[in-house]
Amino acid sequence: MTATDAPSAVSPSSFDWEGAFSPQARRLGSSAIREILKITQRPEIISFAGGLPAPELFPIEAVREAANTVLSTYGAAALQYSTTEGHLPLREWLAARAGIDAANVQIMTGSQQSLDLLGKMLIGEGDVVLVEAPTYLGALQSFNPYGPQYVQMAADEEGIDLDALEEQLKTVKAKLLYAVPNFQNPTGRTLSLERRQRLVELTARHGIILIEDDPYGAIRFSGEPLPSLYELSLKMCGGPERSHVIYSGSFSKVLVPGLRDAWVQAALPIIRKLIQAKQGADLHTPTFNQMIISELVETVMPAQIERVKAVYGERAQHMMARMDAQFPAGVQHTTPQGGMFLWVTLPEQIDTVPLLEQAVKRLVAFVPGAPFYALGGGHNTMRLSFSSATLDQIETGIAALAQTIQEALD
Amino acid sequence: MTATDAPSAVSPSSFDWEGAFSPQARRLGSSAIREILKITQRPEIISFAGGLPAPELFPIEAVREAANTVLSTYGAAALQYSTTEGHLPLREWLAARAGIDAANVQIMTGSQQSLDLLGKMLIGEGDVVLVEAPTYLGALQSFNPYGPQYVQMAADEEGIDLDALEEQLKTVKAKLLYAVPNFQNPTGRTLSLERRQRLVELTARHGIILIEDDPYGAIRFSGEPLPSLYELSLKMCGGPERSHVIYSGSFSKVLVPGLRDAWVQAALPIIRKLIQAKQGADLHTPTFNQMIISELVETVMPAQIERVKAVYGERAQHMMARMDAQFPAGVQHTTPQGGMFLWVTLPEQIDTVPLLEQAVKRLVAFVPGAPFYALGGGHNTMRLSFSSATLDQIETGIAALAQTIQEALD
Repeated sequence: MTATDAPSAVSPSSFDWEGAFSPQARRLGSSAIREILKITQRPEIISFAGGLPAPELFPIEAVREAANTVLSTYGAAALQYSTTEGHLPLREWLAARAGIDAANVQIMTGSQQSLDLLGKMLIGEGDVVLVEAPTYLGALQSFNPYGPQYVQMAADEEGIDLDALEEQLKTVKAKLLYAVPNFQNPTGRTLSLERRQRLVELTARHGIILIEDDPYGAIRFSGEPLPSLYELSLKMCGGPERSHVIYSGSFSKVLVPGLRDAWVQAALPIIRKLIQAKQGADLHTPTFNQMIISELVETVMPAQIERVKAVYGERAQHMMARMDAQFPAGVQHTTPQGGMFLWVTLPEQIDTVPLLEQAVKRLVAFVPGAPFYALGGGHNTMRLSFSSATLDQIETGIAALAQTIQEALD
Repeated sequence: MTATDAPSAVSPSSFDWEGAFSPQARRLGSSAIREILKITQRPEIISFAGGLPAPELFPIEAVREAANTVLSTYGAAALQYSTTEGHLPLREWLAARAGIDAANVQIMTGSQQSLDLLGKMLIGEGDVVLVEAPTYLGALQSFNPYGPQYVQMAADEEGIDLDALEEQLKTVKAKLLYAVPNFQNPTGRTLSLERRQRLVELTARHGIILIEDDPYGAIRFSGEPLPSLYELSLKMCGGPERSHVIYSGSFSKVLVPGLRDAWVQAALPIIRKLIQAKQGADLHTPTFNQMIISELVETVMPAQIERVKAVYGERAQHMMARMDAQFPAGVQHTTPQGGMFLWVTLPEQIDTVPLLEQAVKRLVAFVPGAPFYALGGGHNTMRLSFSSATLDQIETGIAALAQTIQEALD
């Protein structure tokens, strides 16, 4: 069904698209993960590579009921254009939970849109953006077109190293700091309470905007819940209008990702600019989807979160136990207390990019760690997701991965 | 429910958000239309201001059935993350209709996203973008952050004046041309066949990328259908890979807008870059929504289009007849053959911004024309939408508007 490619008098050669791309387009790259995932999607492969929530836990019947209820309740309004700000009952529910006003809550089309539009609003070419090393790859993809200059922050098991950061800030003039404090993607690490307080205080003192990306916060399967950076900033800075923290939340991991519903909590000047940016980006998040989510937050979501926590916790424990039993000496992993990921560090001589090829031969897949570093590094690291593999698959897959690593070490 | 705004040792004053905004954020402005619409949303006002499809025509029960079918057919996959390219059956359906390959079709979250991401990919700061005068305000909003230099093209009843454009191109080096050839927003004008051919040929010869925005094309209620610029370019340039036309389509006006589903047809280098841009912008269009639309395109959409055409055609005829009967001499209007809008030009001495205030007092609203001009002009013009007003409302509203205009002329 392809139209003829016969030559033409009008346009003798193909159009020079590469030459036509803007500077921001040239800074876009395809996601390394995305290309890798394509290889690993063969059904016979046990994949710890993806970042997919477990589909067998999705509340399909509840979504069906909510969709029907929404159409009965709202009728045509559920399918009509709606406000850029988002569905008011959903914004009010989120605001009440956070102890802020609905005016400080903006609904977004997935948290990827939050990152894109916050990047667009806040990153000018050459602006210094502090990121964890490693950090969430999707944030780099969103920010890159706007031309940031990244500076990496050191981290350990408790997250960002605040002593090191304080030292860095003596010489680095940063505009923005991006962090995933809970069960970080990709490492699974969680920022400790003491460091959270210091981070909020330090960035406030230096006038650095802090973007807190928190898609996994509700999925804590061990340890005690910690306040968000945003929550701490409300107390430390004196309310939402004085906070320099922009909080990005999402329904993708606690309900379902395919509806693309997320939100931002921030001071009014940020929300107002975000509304303008979103008008130009997609007018508004799908009306129907926001209303469906709004039906589910009170009814289904609390039990859904408990279910997800129990299952992911069991899978994480199993994966860590199998790794501890089978991985060669010198291989280390993080110990996540929630979320979907853990991080493995191999001996220096191993490069996880060629290792992936060997692993795929043994029918197991992971994501090499290097792409998660904004400025390079991490050649001997990998991200494993435990969220969507069964216990049996974890058993088989970790055994295959242990063999692959052992072979590479020999 | 607002957290305390007590002063704090950490952040004694509010954060300087204005100073933190990027150059692209500073180029964002709120939609003039959006602000005006807020005033005119009082229920007692007959509004010709909005650009809303008629909600009483929405196929609510068909959407309900489709939603249920999708959940039964696809189960969890309807609610899971999905590919950036979009739901393959929907892309295949669109491709077959256009006589191209599915690889040349990209699903988007509303055509506003198409404009945003095409702007991001193609407009570098200072690049010359040719736009109609007046043009679609939403396109300006999407393009503005990327810093285009607009050049306006003259137009008459048959759309863009090709003689004038050919003359302009002798001195203007343009990167991009943006046009709405069918029932343009805001004027309702349609580009004639002869001018379509010349426009495709002229832009190809000058190496200018042509973005064809076609949300209304299917809603033709009088006259003969014309080929799209994209279709003409496939023949004239020799197939999709040689075409310099990027086609932006949408399901918002032919099905429902609240699901936010649209698409782009273009050469592979554009599609590949668009995929990268979309990964960073929202990962993918909501899975569930794409599947619902895919259920509806074969079953409900053909009859829906006929229904919309009949109703909008009747409303447009009625509005024009009432205007011809009641508007003072010297007031002119366009004669749309489809779409949702018509354009009124008043005597030079009338400014439609203060006129709107007077109109609202008489309980009728329109959108002043000036914001639709990228470079100013059109103080004595207005856009009227006939899509969502009943015949009675048109009767009453046009009478009130006629009185308002007469009063302003006196």
